[in-house]
Amino acid sequence: MGQPTVGSNPTSSAMNQSKEAMITADEAMLLALEEARKAAGEGEVPVGAVGVAGGEVVATGHNLRESSHDPTAHAEMLVLRQAAAARGSWRLDGLEFYVTLEPCLMCAGALLAARVSRLVYAAPDPKAGACGTLYNVCVDPRLNHEIPVLSGLMEDEASRLLSTFFAGRR
Amino acid sequence: MGQPTVGSNPTSSAMNQSKEAMITADEAMLLALEEARKAAGEGEVPVGAVGVAGGEVVATGHNLRESSHDPTAHAEMLVLRQAAAARGSWRLDGLEFYVTLEPCLMCAGALLAARVSRLVYAAPDPKAGACGTLYNVCVDPRLNHEIPVLSGLMEDEASRLLSTFFAGRR
Repeated sequence: MGQPTVGSNPTSSAMNQSKEAMITADEAMLLALEEARKAAGEGEVPVGAVGVAGGEVVATGHNLRESSHDPTAHAEMLVLRQAAAARGSWRLDGLEFYVTLEPCLMCAGALLAARVSRLVYAAPDPKAGACGTLYNVCVDPRLNHEIPVLSGLMEDEASRLLSTFFAGRR
Repeated sequence: MGQPTVGSNPTSSAMNQSKEAMITADEAMLLALEEARKAAGEGEVPVGAVGVAGGEVVATGHNLRESSHDPTAHAEMLVLRQAAAARGSWRLDGLEFYVTLEPCLMCAGALLAARVSRLVYAAPDPKAGACGTLYNVCVDPRLNHEIPVLSGLMEDEASRLLSTFFAGRR
């Protein structure tokens, strides 16, 4: 629990380019957790996400399904759309994606559709996870894109946020 | 080809309520095909979708991925978001969904997330279809919602639009 299941320093190659400017995987996930806390503060299921390109944060967001009345307003979708708007392209090659909860089918499908380059998530989702739990769609050779997945980075903190949130609603 | 593979008059129970006001499945798919033609006219892959609730069209749309620079701007996503905005709720119980191409993982996941009541699609998608071809996620009992799926309604016309579009781009 709480340790990545694949690799230990996922940004090492990027870090070599410019140590000062590059955000680390830990820093990116801490930002995603901060977004998840914002969601909880707004009465939303606490899930946060961050997009990183070229070692810089290009988009951050959190789940807004309830307040926006939008079934597609999961953290991942909002961050993908924000990153695409910033780049002016639906194709997000090179984007490294951090999210506090394992993406569902919709979000995993969107990550594939956007051609993101890597996915790092914190907590697994036993009820809807599509990136290793119920499905493993990011590594399906039949699809036109595959995404390397790293799971478990700061899993304990992400899970604690979720369980505290749901305990408070009971 | 071109015939529904399940059932033959999907709106018969709805039709009994008010024959004049209710849109038929054929009429809804014709509207979706019209949307697909609009997409082609805009240089977008021709896919169109229509949402029907209570026998009335509540949302229509077509693929806008290129012009919007948004990886999530598939026809289905735009129609779901429009229908949710009209209802003021992410939960779209009772929504019947018509689309000219078999939904991908992202769109099928979004239909599940929105709790739509029925999916009717025209052409199968051998490369990315998640509702019967590569995956069959709408009828997965492990997920918290299932969606009855009807496929093949006006398949020939939907497929012809797509093949004409891609032939023109070669």
